[in-house]
Amino acid sequence: MNTEESLNKEEVTSNSTSQYRNFPMVPRVVFGEGSFSQLGEILLPKRRNSEAPFIFLVDDFFENEEFAAQIPLIFNDELIFISANEEPKTEQVDALVKRIQDTYEELPSGIIGIGGGTLLDLAKAVAILLNNNGRAEQYQGWDLVNRPALYHVGVPTISGTGAEVSRTTVLLGPEKKLGINSDYTTYDQVILDPDLTKTVPKEQWFYTGMDCFIHCIESLNGTYLNAFSQSYGEKALELCKEVFLEDIPECESRDKLMMASWHGGMSIAYSQVGIAHAVSYGLSYLLGVKHGIGNCLVFQHLGEFYPDGVQLFRKMIEKHNIKLPQGVCSNLTQNDFDIMVNVALGMDALWENALGKEWKTIMTPERLQAIYQRI
Amino acid sequence: MNTEESLNKEEVTSNSTSQYRNFPMVPRVVFGEGSFSQLGEILLPKRRNSEAPFIFLVDDFFENEEFAAQIPLIFNDELIFISANEEPKTEQVDALVKRIQDTYEELPSGIIGIGGGTLLDLAKAVAILLNNNGRAEQYQGWDLVNRPALYHVGVPTISGTGAEVSRTTVLLGPEKKLGINSDYTTYDQVILDPDLTKTVPKEQWFYTGMDCFIHCIESLNGTYLNAFSQSYGEKALELCKEVFLEDIPECESRDKLMMASWHGGMSIAYSQVGIAHAVSYGLSYLLGVKHGIGNCLVFQHLGEFYPDGVQLFRKMIEKHNIKLPQGVCSNLTQNDFDIMVNVALGMDALWENALGKEWKTIMTPERLQAIYQRI
Repeated sequence: MNTEESLNKEEVTSNSTSQYRNFPMVPRVVFGEGSFSQLGEILLPKRRNSEAPFIFLVDDFFENEEFAAQIPLIFNDELIFISANEEPKTEQVDALVKRIQDTYEELPSGIIGIGGGTLLDLAKAVAILLNNNGRAEQYQGWDLVNRPALYHVGVPTISGTGAEVSRTTVLLGPEKKLGINSDYTTYDQVILDPDLTKTVPKEQWFYTGMDCFIHCIESLNGTYLNAFSQSYGEKALELCKEVFLEDIPECESRDKLMMASWHGGMSIAYSQVGIAHAVSYGLSYLLGVKHGIGNCLVFQHLGEFYPDGVQLFRKMIEKHNIKLPQGVCSNLTQNDFDIMVNVALGMDALWENALGKEWKTIMTPERLQAIYQRI
Repeated sequence: MNTEESLNKEEVTSNSTSQYRNFPMVPRVVFGEGSFSQLGEILLPKRRNSEAPFIFLVDDFFENEEFAAQIPLIFNDELIFISANEEPKTEQVDALVKRIQDTYEELPSGIIGIGGGTLLDLAKAVAILLNNNGRAEQYQGWDLVNRPALYHVGVPTISGTGAEVSRTTVLLGPEKKLGINSDYTTYDQVILDPDLTKTVPKEQWFYTGMDCFIHCIESLNGTYLNAFSQSYGEKALELCKEVFLEDIPECESRDKLMMASWHGGMSIAYSQVGIAHAVSYGLSYLLGVKHGIGNCLVFQHLGEFYPDGVQLFRKMIEKHNIKLPQGVCSNLTQNDFDIMVNVALGMDALWENALGKEWKTIMTPERLQAIYQRI
């Protein structure tokens, strides 16, 4: 979600009335342990006919798991397992769209994304491209999508990114990593079943949860905040604290992290992320560091800017015995640092949100390089 | 909102799968001081043609206020001022629908409700009945509406009821006070402009805010709660505490109460109200006491059941120097008390939510009458 969140504010500043953005909310949501069992019933009235399949895009983590058998396939519905090891790409979207168009005479009845941020973003993009001509990269940007997406349903199986509730899908294109930001991107239906997060590996759980925690800290400490985003951000932060610092039962913890992700995603409606995201984007651009862990690598060194947040973060790291990689930047050349510094400092809106309009006098290239050198 | 909230759970228990209710959210929301100025722009693409008007139903409090001039009427749009002194009635809905049908050859492009819970509920019902044959009373109940409502927009001008976000519209019918509960009831668009609440009289502000506070206390202390509703209810409660117990600037207070109402309304998705609502319903049924003040009259005497909540409530009453009416039940006959007790004890779901399955052994008619006698 890095670039996306990073660039969110640029959308705002490009539209004179977007101080009052008309924010699209997910129009249908089911919550509850076991609620995934409702998916078949929910899809039934949305099936156009028996020749128009539902296509399920599912994290291949589940390929040999019991869960896969619970996916309600009927008629010519198709289940496609996809690896979430790399960030989603525009070509990957184009290939999926072509594959679906070549296989079926009719447009699908809908697309169901089941997984974490990567799968949720892919499914959104495929749903858009099946109903809009051309290639995915043509729609990277703001409000370039002209026609509604196919009906699409999001089912998160890991909590933190907020992709289940956002109006974007972040894709790595041939030239840029950028979201397809549009009112048609938002899911038509979301199923929040905390039981689906039972099998998440611990480190993945931690890093993805920290995505939520860090973007709450950044937006709540930013200069762009309004009361709408503040109320969602505060609740998400409070839930993160309960999940990562208190000793609550596991099932309660899963429930609360799922709601933290939901509210954290909503909080982005009228706010912006900050320094960790800008700096982490440099890491991601040069070294391919993934979003969740990248934010953690940066955030630990931002005590001057987010003192309370970093203190909480250190307690969370310690409590869960997480060992962050060290020396990530130790073998880089001056040219490498220059690239990262340039990329990060290009994110004007994030710096302005974090440090105010005079941010360039505060965050100099030298000071930023010193942060990278500690990572 | 009294009966509606009261009966919400009956819907749940009448549907075997509604533990996983597929909750409809408002699909579009704008927040911000001054955001009402966006209404014209928002309506433009929704106008079917120049002969299909938008009908604005507006609290007559604004009839001679400057605000009325800001309502964006064009072509043959119509502004109808309506008193919110009495609770909305099914006949009132039927009369409005007939008036609109008689005046225009075409169906309106949409209905805009501007006001508090009464106006917001009326506008929802009119939008439903303009697209569904028959009389409003035929649709009181659960999921009886077959066709979508006309496009409808809600603009709250007082905060607390949560009507801007709920899937019901509570109407007083010839035989019952009951909501039209349906997925089509929810607004298509909401504009949250805290500036519109600047002119609310203080007592009205307090009683309507207490509607939110009390239903949060009841749902958070109830046995039906899940993590989804809990997270919204907790945030709404926290905001109520800031608004009514802390000394925050007025503009911040308006922002926060508007968000409290929003989150409070969302919290009802998977929860239920409790004792104050059940008992207040008896008052409302027999004496016509309005919802906000009725809840306050009851809640002050529920210290045994909601000790922390009642303590907070007393502080709020004191801080804002609110004088609740006294002796409301002092001249009632035993027959009157019997009526109120019967009505209140008929709300099984609320009592079960508050006191558990064995609630009848706890709340006897005698004990309940003693509560009424203190009001």
